[in-house]
Amino acid sequence: MTAGKNRQIVLAARPVGLPKAEDFRLVETPVPEPGPGEMLVRARWLSLDPYMRGRMSDAPSYARPVAIGEVMVGAVVGEVVRSSHPDFAAGDVVEERLGWQEYAISRGREARKVDPTLAPISTALGILGMPGLTAYFGLLEVGRPRPGETVVVSAAAGAVGAVVGQIAKIGGCRAVGLAGSKAKVDYLVGELGFDAGVDYKTADLHAALAVACPRGVDVYFDNVGGRITEAVSRHVNPFARVAVCGLISQYNLEKPELAPRNERFVLVNRVRIQGFIVSDFYARRDEALRQLAEWLRQGRLKYREDVVDGLEKAPAAFIGMLQGKNFGKQLVRIA
Amino acid sequence: MTAGKNRQIVLAARPVGLPKAEDFRLVETPVPEPGPGEMLVRARWLSLDPYMRGRMSDAPSYARPVAIGEVMVGAVVGEVVRSSHPDFAAGDVVEERLGWQEYAISRGREARKVDPTLAPISTALGILGMPGLTAYFGLLEVGRPRPGETVVVSAAAGAVGAVVGQIAKIGGCRAVGLAGSKAKVDYLVGELGFDAGVDYKTADLHAALAVACPRGVDVYFDNVGGRITEAVSRHVNPFARVAVCGLISQYNLEKPELAPRNERFVLVNRVRIQGFIVSDFYARRDEALRQLAEWLRQGRLKYREDVVDGLEKAPAAFIGMLQGKNFGKQLVRIA
Repeated sequence: MTAGKNRQIVLAARPVGLPKAEDFRLVETPVPEPGPGEMLVRARWLSLDPYMRGRMSDAPSYARPVAIGEVMVGAVVGEVVRSSHPDFAAGDVVEERLGWQEYAISRGREARKVDPTLAPISTALGILGMPGLTAYFGLLEVGRPRPGETVVVSAAAGAVGAVVGQIAKIGGCRAVGLAGSKAKVDYLVGELGFDAGVDYKTADLHAALAVACPRGVDVYFDNVGGRITEAVSRHVNPFARVAVCGLISQYNLEKPELAPRNERFVLVNRVRIQGFIVSDFYARRDEALRQLAEWLRQGRLKYREDVVDGLEKAPAAFIGMLQGKNFGKQLVRIA
Repeated sequence: MTAGKNRQIVLAARPVGLPKAEDFRLVETPVPEPGPGEMLVRARWLSLDPYMRGRMSDAPSYARPVAIGEVMVGAVVGEVVRSSHPDFAAGDVVEERLGWQEYAISRGREARKVDPTLAPISTALGILGMPGLTAYFGLLEVGRPRPGETVVVSAAAGAVGAVVGQIAKIGGCRAVGLAGSKAKVDYLVGELGFDAGVDYKTADLHAALAVACPRGVDVYFDNVGGRITEAVSRHVNPFARVAVCGLISQYNLEKPELAPRNERFVLVNRVRIQGFIVSDFYARRDEALRQLAEWLRQGRLKYREDVVDGLEKAPAAFIGMLQGKNFGKQLVRIA
């Protein structure tokens, strides 16, 4: 038996619009006991990601929703406390989607060992984890930029967007980031080496895009959807590619926004718009992680984390992230 | 000097909404005289195609608009009357975009010789011409169907759509056509071998699509855009492809329709939406024409023409086509 309690955050209600604190509930349960072939993992870091908003809803999607009363879905990095799994031993650091909780049982099937000598272990939830992989595969396999082309990314100061722009630069492209404050835009250009940034909240978006993209847009990596995407669409070049990664502007809408149909720009410019989900590329995960780690080691990739302390802060941090209040990869540090 | 007059139809005014007769004007000019290296072509057949509506407008597009007073753009099949071009002789049958007129001068650069022993020469404007090539490249290169998949095509009884469905069948797919009357649907299934057809005017579109596509939609070849496309979108399978060929439902709108944003279905289903223009594939035109001719010879492709007689009938036939009144490839026979 493990002494002590496990704190968990469960889905209390399906949100209407922007989630609120009462849609979540903190519960305490006994720390579970691993069975044969299982291990007990103690979470150190919890990742908060926009996709989680989709799992709170029961609209049809590519993954099943979280049930009411069920622990919220989410990836953690943690330490193996006890294990009877042949591949994992006490003390190992693992990354796995174990949910918003302090302790969890893992059968190891989707657990990935994290090398703590490579980089801080929290990066296994960011630049060396799902967000980094999303940027890598989405840009290189869906966007397919060529050197000299202009790559625009929305939510560019976020965990995915920041990596997209930096990989675009490594590939010899012009990188342009859209973000929601002057501080974020300054960070993109001053710290991450983007060629230009556009504050979508204050700027005349069309004029700013025209200045930032003097040769038009060849690849648009879309994390937001909605009116920002509509604006970028007007600047695309023939044979442009749009990698649809996320739609954070739309997740909290109670009914779909109406907008002018976008088919004409697709036809006239022979645009390719393609949705993708990172796990579709996981057969090549190790290759991509090696490349990302190498770029990180070389100083060609930088990252920024936005950390809150304590599992109980997760709901507020998640709600803030959906509003763009985070600056960098949103993490919860678990004591 | 050539005796006689040349009749031409010129653009009289830019249409607002659906074009009307007064947007066109019939003019008479002298039959022109070919200069050195040129030839005089007498049109026998004029093709009417939806893309022409785009050229009547001065909205930015992939091709320049027809100027007011200029001869309407369009492909013809005709006979060479006189030639000082080294590659073409009097009596040759050629296909070229020479406009809505009875006679035209060609420099031969874009003229294609038509073999009158292969099939009726009018087919060089249809199944063995631009519409056939559009179907061929759009389906095979953009849609990329695999055997056993379901291919849906809109405007399926039209010059492009009918070929799309038949090529889908040749490729071992389930072919489903959307068309605007019961007679057209009967033709698709009874004559062309489509597996199912949906009359988009009378049916409950969602219910009908569900019946016609019991395993969902893998490839949607879109000739129409608008609400029909929106309906099909709800039935797509993961990794579906949408080949955006035309938007006939939208061409006559005075301002863009508002519609619910379609980004979510793209993301959740990892859909690829891709616009294309047939001429982007013309490096491979001869290969495709040989294949289409071979299928035609084998009886695996059938076609239907909707013919009006006399150049002066072209405007009314064109306006009718934009409303879906044609049944098969719309042609004007020129006496």
